Amino acid sequence: MHKNEALQTYPCSGIEHLKVHGRTTGCLDPVTLFWTGSAVEFNVKASELWIEVESGYDQYEPWISILINSVPVSRQMLTAGRYWVCVFRGMNENAVKNVRIVKDVQAMSGDPGCYMQIHAVKTDGEFVPVEAKPYKFEFIGDSITSGEGVVGAKSEEDWIPMWFSAIHNYTAMTADALNAEYRVISQSGWGVLTSWDNNPHANLPDTYEQVCGLLAGAKNTALGAFSANDFDSWQPDVVVVNLGTNDDGAFHSPGWQDEVSGKIHNQRLNDDGTYNEADLAAFELAVEKFLLKLRTNNKTAHIIWAYGMLGIPMMPAIHRGVDRYAKRTGDKKVSVFQLPNMTNETIGARSHPGVLDHKQAAQELTGYIQGILAI
Amino acid sequence: MHKNEALQTYPCSGIEHLKVHGRTTGCLDPVTLFWTGSAVEFNVKASELWIEVESGYDQYEPWISILINSVPVSRQMLTAGRYWVCVFRGMNENAVKNVRIVKDVQAMSGDPGCYMQIHAVKTDGEFVPVEAKPYKFEFIGDSITSGEGVVGAKSEEDWIPMWFSAIHNYTAMTADALNAEYRVISQSGWGVLTSWDNNPHANLPDTYEQVCGLLAGAKNTALGAFSANDFDSWQPDVVVVNLGTNDDGAFHSPGWQDEVSGKIHNQRLNDDGTYNEADLAAFELAVEKFLLKLRTNNKTAHIIWAYGMLGIPMMPAIHRGVDRYAKRTGDKKVSVFQLPNMTNETIGARSHPGVLDHKQAAQELTGYIQGILAI
Amino acid sequence: MHKNEALQTYPCSGIEHLKVHGRTTGCLDPVTLFWTGSAVEFNVKASELWIEVESGYDQYEPWISILINSVPVSRQMLTAGRYWVCVFRGMNENAVKNVRIVKDVQAMSGDPGCYMQIHAVKTDGEFVPVEAKPYKFEFIGDSITSGEGVVGAKSEEDWIPMWFSAIHNYTAMTADALNAEYRVISQSGWGVLTSWDNNPHANLPDTYEQVCGLLAGAKNTALGAFSANDFDSWQPDVVVVNLGTNDDGAFHSPGWQDEVSGKIHNQRLNDDGTYNEADLAAFELAVEKFLLKLRTNNKTAHIIWAYGMLGIPMMPAIHRGVDRYAKRTGDKKVSVFQLPNMTNETIGARSHPGVLDHKQAAQELTGYIQGILAI
Amino acid sequence: MHKNEALQTYPCSGIEHLKVHGRTTGCLDPVTLFWTGSAVEFNVKASELWIEVESGYDQYEPWISILINSVPVSRQMLTAGRYWVCVFRGMNENAVKNVRIVKDVQAMSGDPGCYMQIHAVKTDGEFVPVEAKPYKFEFIGDSITSGEGVVGAKSEEDWIPMWFSAIHNYTAMTADALNAEYRVISQSGWGVLTSWDNNPHANLPDTYEQVCGLLAGAKNTALGAFSANDFDSWQPDVVVVNLGTNDDGAFHSPGWQDEVSGKIHNQRLNDDGTYNEADLAAFELAVEKFLLKLRTNNKTAHIIWAYGMLGIPMMPAIHRGVDRYAKRTGDKKVSVFQLPNMTNETIGARSHPGVLDHKQAAQELTGYIQGILAI
Repeated sequence: MHKNEALQTYPCSGIEHLKVHGRTTGCLDPVTLFWTGSAVEFNVKASELWIEVESGYDQYEPWISILINSVPVSRQMLTAGRYWVCVFRGMNENAVKNVRIVKDVQAMSGDPGCYMQIHAVKTDGEFVPVEAKPYKFEFIGDSITSGEGVVGAKSEEDWIPMWFSAIHNYTAMTADALNAEYRVISQSGWGVLTSWDNNPHANLPDTYEQVCGLLAGAKNTALGAFSANDFDSWQPDVVVVNLGTNDDGAFHSPGWQDEVSGKIHNQRLNDDGTYNEADLAAFELAVEKFLLKLRTNNKTAHIIWAYGMLGIPMMPAIHRGVDRYAKRTGDKKVSVFQLPNMTNETIGARSHPGVLDHKQAAQELTGYIQGILAI
Repeated sequence: MHKNEALQTYPCSGIEHLKVHGRTTGCLDPVTLFWTGSAVEFNVKASELWIEVESGYDQYEPWISILINSVPVSRQMLTAGRYWVCVFRGMNENAVKNVRIVKDVQAMSGDPGCYMQIHAVKTDGEFVPVEAKPYKFEFIGDSITSGEGVVGAKSEEDWIPMWFSAIHNYTAMTADALNAEYRVISQSGWGVLTSWDNNPHANLPDTYEQVCGLLAGAKNTALGAFSANDFDSWQPDVVVVNLGTNDDGAFHSPGWQDEVSGKIHNQRLNDDGTYNEADLAAFELAVEKFLLKLRTNNKTAHIIWAYGMLGIPMMPAIHRGVDRYAKRTGDKKVSVFQLPNMTNETIGARSHPGVLDHKQAAQELTGYIQGILAI
Repeated sequence: MHKNEALQTYPCSGIEHLKVHGRTTGCLDPVTLFWTGSAVEFNVKASELWIEVESGYDQYEPWISILINSVPVSRQMLTAGRYWVCVFRGMNENAVKNVRIVKDVQAMSGDPGCYMQIHAVKTDGEFVPVEAKPYKFEFIGDSITSGEGVVGAKSEEDWIPMWFSAIHNYTAMTADALNAEYRVISQSGWGVLTSWDNNPHANLPDTYEQVCGLLAGAKNTALGAFSANDFDSWQPDVVVVNLGTNDDGAFHSPGWQDEVSGKIHNQRLNDDGTYNEADLAAFELAVEKFLLKLRTNNKTAHIIWAYGMLGIPMMPAIHRGVDRYAKRTGDKKVSVFQLPNMTNETIGARSHPGVLDHKQAAQELTGYIQGILAI
Repeated sequence: MHKNEALQTYPCSGIEHLKVHGRTTGCLDPVTLFWTGSAVEFNVKASELWIEVESGYDQYEPWISILINSVPVSRQMLTAGRYWVCVFRGMNENAVKNVRIVKDVQAMSGDPGCYMQIHAVKTDGEFVPVEAKPYKFEFIGDSITSGEGVVGAKSEEDWIPMWFSAIHNYTAMTADALNAEYRVISQSGWGVLTSWDNNPHANLPDTYEQVCGLLAGAKNTALGAFSANDFDSWQPDVVVVNLGTNDDGAFHSPGWQDEVSGKIHNQRLNDDGTYNEADLAAFELAVEKFLLKLRTNNKTAHIIWAYGMLGIPMMPAIHRGVDRYAKRTGDKKVSVFQLPNMTNETIGARSHPGVLDHKQAAQELTGYIQGILAI
């Protein structure tokens, strides 16, 4: 091998025109990527480039995808440690490349030891500005929005990071189609009110105002996951909420018992299989309250409750929750949109939407957002 | 991290039921993968698995794709060195996984230092048999068959390993559609008679009978690249030859001068833009002679000359070469098939066929082979 | 020409195993086809077959499509008069053909002189039974459901029968996908409460219980259009209501003045562009009341309010109307389903959904109905 | 009905800017349409339009398709007689419509009584010029080119006009894609040398120079079918010959005996299933001679032998025939192109290519012609 003597190392804070995607603490040395779809991006005129990553976990390892000029070229597991990963080499040193290193798996609420960081970049060239995109989108959701099941054979059943994708995902596709930068706030199994198994703590709204509040543990505390998110620094044009699928699941699952208080939380079905009215009302209230919280933090965004990739049983309740919110507040920039249901042709791994369903969802959602933004 | 104490290391020779795809020397410790699409494959009942790879190069680094249960889950550059790569972890230890580690880039005739090896596997489980496939296909070709340009933005122009793909490639797709195992013998820029720039040494036929004779250098000699290939051990049902595109290129390029002898080799056009007859006859003869060599080594295979993904200017000459071969030998198991031309919609990087063209080519070729094999 | 001497004429009442699709009065001599998609169907073992049609109109002529073995083979305008149309000739007399003569354009509320009838069939063979289909669907809608704009260039603007299609229509496609027989009750420009231009008489619910009550004139009276529909004779498994698009249009149109009373009906927008609350409530009430009427007449059907092929502005109000109905009645077999919006790629003539949008709508609706019927 | 008093009748010779597609005798009163895809076309600014047709046959009735502004709106059988067919009515009298009445079924060599004519047009408006298209294509072929099997269920087996289509046909699609006007010369079952059943008279070349020389009978003589075609008046840019499929069929069929001479014509297979060399040479000679005839009459056209929608067994022989022609004449504007084979997904009625195969063939052929014409 010819060693490339021209390589120089830049800490993230030293990368000119660095763009960090996804919520962070603002800390650059290193940059911690919490959420799926979060990324570092830069334009570089160079022949070779490496990134220094750090990864740790008790159970669920991080994965990254690498995009060169917006096309995925590599996807790999980040085993534990701090080390250099080569992004490209042997390229024309005079051509500018757009590089995006994307966290390809969701934040892991179940693994307090899981984290992923970018420390530095090593290159023989120079950084040039990245063009700003005209729109900002935020997606809030569950496993669907985390892209669970996008990768892997239909027969796969293990719950592991390998089957997640931030790239072949309706979030990325929609943002791409409308030339928007975007953030994702998502967690498999979670809902607006409870998780699929009735855990009332496993809801997205409670920790929405923290950088990545659904994490746990000392390590994540130290990384700033529980800091208040700086909403002023990034105000989206559109917020898409894709929640409700696990709230429906809760109705079909046994109650969840709080280990400390012994209290059981349970969304119940009536004997005839319909939803218990009081429990459904609790869900609707959760929808309403989440919208209030979203509006508090996102002053001008169009809020779209987009739901349906795994069926629409909660749709009437979502409409009622949204309706009540709209009526009480007079907010006119909130609406509900049905996403296309997964079929036998579009299913992926783990009985979750596959690439084809994400593509269809992205197409329909893109059309809807186009109408709203009048693009 | 919880260290997995149950991991045990197996040299390749110790992997039960190991399947090696692609031409090799037969050496298992380590397995050297020469050609694109070559691979190690095994079925394993385990929760975790790593492979120990070794990679070296002066210029062009190897890449691999990892397939779990036939689905690509990871693709990465192999920077120089010998090290462990994690294939999966955290999976159900009682479920069998099919694992395939595929060399994702062609043998590099231009880089005598380039090689790639698999030394060992580390796992906490056990190996189980891999079901044999009913057919064997061999593909012989140039950059198209090497999958050059399948990965990357249309604007990419660098000649680097990153843009190659063995997976999203008509070879893999065709073999997959017909449940065949397959091998690929290919080199960008090369032809039947000469390379695109008239180099008469850059042809596939000359070294066809060696394991990977188009390589160079002491390292590759040591690895056995120039050994005679053991044809008896693997007799294909179908041989697909996708050559001619660079032979046409030679007619449109200046002559090539041998540095030692000073002799110039040049395939010429007439003043009116048609092929010089004598030079075209040399090409036709090369087609004929290659078929003789193919038949010598592949006693019963259907030989299909498949051509057209970048235009069909050489088609009449190919037909003449094939015709003459068939007439002289009475061989009835040889034919010519036109592949669909790349369009603006199906183009990939580096002005080469993209995934969509490979998909279309695979569909049409699959139909043709089905007819021949009467499947 | 060789005259086929074997042809015999059968009045409709004489056709064994005749199947009449769509609401009729029960009269067979002749059969009057009122609605789009209504049809006569039979299986015949013969070499030749003709039908005797009768057509009349002041303005809008009827069209038919002919399907042989479920495939459209002919589509033609029926100019005024009573005459024979050849359906097929020269076929194998021993093979059974399924024949369906379909009215390819909606009932014409605006043309009291418009009617279409089948008097008789002339054939040289015999009729055999038509297999019954396992499901019955009813579709109620506006121009979308009438297939307006499915035929014709995008630039077409005339409001004429030629641009309508009962065949390349989501109703036919959905029924076909699920092997259901079906009926369509539809009218361009009409709504649940009013038409697009605020006419409160131009609503589907008012005349729902008549055979084809939206027609007018003495001729149609004589034909029985205003008779009570015999719901007992045909109880659907699914009723799809695709209304709301014109009710939204009313809000964006000037008021409609009753010529007799001078009274103006007007659905109003507020100054800020939102719907006037009282007017919107009137729409919601219309939804609720229509559901009551539908349930009265269709005892066991799943009622699906399917809406969205031209946008979803009324969706919240539809949900409210449906919700109130469900709450008041306890009816659990009613739901709302969003259909995919038309795009620039799927648009047809007259700014209406084209074949591609109908296909997409049919696919999604089919999936939804499959879930409901647990097929 | 309101009778349209403004209608005036124009004999074809009185239609300003009338465009007649397909070979004719030049006679306008009436216009006889011989070949599939032949048509009358005009632009008219009117609210209503009728055409007066005349049809006759002993066995196989003509069909027409009507296109308004390039979109098919009607397709119907023309039963025997002379009568008026309404093309449109009730349209905006100030808008110009492009109208094309297309013969939707091939010339019928087997029915001397079959003919179809356009006598006149009745309209209330005026004719305006039709824009000329920049290219002219001629297609010569067999049942594939006649669109046999494009219409109808896969199970259909009768040989009747109903299953033919000139519209959903690779000829029309290719011409449309490249904005060319076009002509079709085709006959089911026929070949270059013989028909599928070895009849040496059933070949396209023999009568190529007549207007429609494959017809028979006194009626067609009177209509001018056997007159010399006026090649000077219409010189194509591209001639596509799609023949060979039936010539292959002949090898697999019993010999054909001339009723008069008792002589048997038979293309034979060897015992091992390969083609008899002498018989194959006769085919190749027929290819060569047809090309000579084509070139004589089409001075500057690119001649493309396009073959493959029902397999490619004759491809080597076609290449040899074309090669010999090119070598002997030095003609550089002749080439061979393989069309995509029909699959189980793209099959139509009567085991013939369906719409999807025609679409795929058109796409690939379009790309090839684009390259040749450098469009």
